[in-house]
Amino acid sequence: MTSPDLAGFYRDYIACLNRRDWPALGRFVAEDVRHNGRALGLAGYRAMLEQDVRDIPDLRFEVALLVCEANSIACRLWFDCTPAGSFLGLPVNGRRIQFAENVFYEIRAGKIAEVWSVIDKAAVEGQLDGGGEAG
Amino acid sequence: MTSPDLAGFYRDYIACLNRRDWPALGRFVAEDVRHNGRALGLAGYRAMLEQDVRDIPDLRFEVALLVCEANSIACRLWFDCTPAGSFLGLPVNGRRIQFAENVFYEIRAGKIAEVWSVIDKAAVEGQLDGGGEAG
Repeated sequence: MTSPDLAGFYRDYIACLNRRDWPALGRFVAEDVRHNGRALGLAGYRAMLEQDVRDIPDLRFEVALLVCEANSIACRLWFDCTPAGSFLGLPVNGRRIQFAENVFYEIRAGKIAEVWSVIDKAAVEGQLDGGGEAG
Repeated sequence: MTSPDLAGFYRDYIACLNRRDWPALGRFVAEDVRHNGRALGLAGYRAMLEQDVRDIPDLRFEVALLVCEANSIACRLWFDCTPAGSFLGLPVNGRRIQFAENVFYEIRAGKIAEVWSVIDKAAVEGQLDGGGEAG
């Protein structure tokens, strides 16, 4: 895909997540997808997202930065949400938090095949401590 | 810069960091650079890097993934190092750890003007707990 095609593909993927359209996930995510080195597969990837939404009912993915080249997508996602219980092992318990996820995707045969994600845990910790962003 | 130019520029920047060539930093980093929303400026940016190297004497930046488009660079950096004391507020104390930093750069007038970085703190915590990567 060209860079504009990749960007359009990715924004469609994010829209799919935001409308919780799990049956459509396979249009974007490969059957043998890997996430941070783990062979989740499409079913495991869907289960991870469904669990995320159970943990964070108001979860919404917002594209803050998007960089596309060849078969690679890099995105800085922004979240403004209220996890019901613990999140990343932290006792959020219904507090509203804001944090980024910087994530890379490798596209193969038109679908997301590899994901390398880092979530800004330090920023969440800083908000629970009552401080600002740690970073 | 074109995408190959950006990639070359970025690899030269990383080489500059790895040889601790702080006087050359201004060839790559803008005078008014911002890091995670903080107006560090070149002097503050250099001070941050010098502190990183004091804290982690064997610090070496390794490019794992690189995505360039227009005025944006996205990189997944990989670190395999031994922080002498605490790192990200964690008691690493000379243990060897491995972790990623997923980071975005905005280039203006041929230099890094804005940096949005997330370091995988959960992965470091997982290694200190004696477990695997958390995530």
